[in-house]
Amino acid sequence: MDYYSSQITKLIEELGKLPGVGSKSAQRLAFHIINMPQEQVDALASAIVDAKANVRYCRECFTLTDDEICPICRNSKRDHRTIMVVESTRDMAAYEKTGKYEGVYHVLHGAISPMLGIGPNDIKLKELMVRLKGDVDEVIIATNSSLEGETTAMYISKLVKPTGISVTRIASGVPVGGDLECIDEVTLLRALDGRVQL
Amino acid sequence: MDYYSSQITKLIEELGKLPGVGSKSAQRLAFHIINMPQEQVDALASAIVDAKANVRYCRECFTLTDDEICPICRNSKRDHRTIMVVESTRDMAAYEKTGKYEGVYHVLHGAISPMLGIGPNDIKLKELMVRLKGDVDEVIIATNSSLEGETTAMYISKLVKPTGISVTRIASGVPVGGDLECIDEVTLLRALDGRVQL
Repeated sequence: MDYYSSQITKLIEELGKLPGVGSKSAQRLAFHIINMPQEQVDALASAIVDAKANVRYCRECFTLTDDEICPICRNSKRDHRTIMVVESTRDMAAYEKTGKYEGVYHVLHGAISPMLGIGPNDIKLKELMVRLKGDVDEVIIATNSSLEGETTAMYISKLVKPTGISVTRIASGVPVGGDLECIDEVTLLRALDGRVQL
Repeated sequence: MDYYSSQITKLIEELGKLPGVGSKSAQRLAFHIINMPQEQVDALASAIVDAKANVRYCRECFTLTDDEICPICRNSKRDHRTIMVVESTRDMAAYEKTGKYEGVYHVLHGAISPMLGIGPNDIKLKELMVRLKGDVDEVIIATNSSLEGETTAMYISKLVKPTGISVTRIASGVPVGGDLECIDEVTLLRALDGRVQL
């Protein structure tokens, strides 16, 4: 790294700390940034600072938002009696892109993982239980279909069931357009277990 | 992009303008940045602004540097009578990493490319000719082994030869550790043409 001047080295180092950016990419990005027009450099730097400064958790659903309460929780047309529990704001965005879900969300910001030392108190679970004291008909658990996601789903269902609120889990199976021979055995067995009457 | 708040969307957009960063990577980077500690966010943003503000061309060799004259050109132990011509600061860094080259450099910031409309006046060629009016024994042309790099090498050699200064080109051939069967025909023929007596 000493082959470059200190300002360039510093920039390469900071870029290299980002996920998925190795030392070669960091160099490429650094030289690109130095050659970018001044306005674009300023726009990038202020987008970084502003996002960090202004983005916070929605007071209701804990998604990342600029406002105290996010647009979805503020929207009175959404069904506030149905709560979909997701691991991250990105997972929430994935469901929002479908344009078909009309309920609200609850973002956990993680999943229970004994391996990584992440317990129930490290994610927004207590906050979910507080919300369930209000008028809620159904909790749809949409955590990832990973070991951690499944563990979290099981844990939440055990917590919620005693309250009498309906708890459901999104279906697991063969993805649309999926070629059976390319799909792993666990998914194939799940798809079999979850078969529906035609 | 409307699934995220405006500050997040803005950050994703700015990151997505960087080379090699698609919309998925931009999202991943944006959420990573929002979750980074405040000091690291500030360090990243100021590294970007500072590098853009303070990095400039060395007055001698035109490499990107923080100083008016770069450390290599300032170093009196380097052989200032030998100038290696490279396309970019990164190419210069590649030769510096070998630790064996003792001359100085000249950074062209590009290569002649009629296809992209880049002519001899768009790269730092006139500046090289000015330097050659001083005490110079040898010009080593180390432009890339691409069509543009070769064109530039030919062009420079034609300009320099009349001055009586020795002009050389770095060797082209089979890379060390290269497996003959995996190497393209042009390289194989170059290696054959450039064979040396043992």
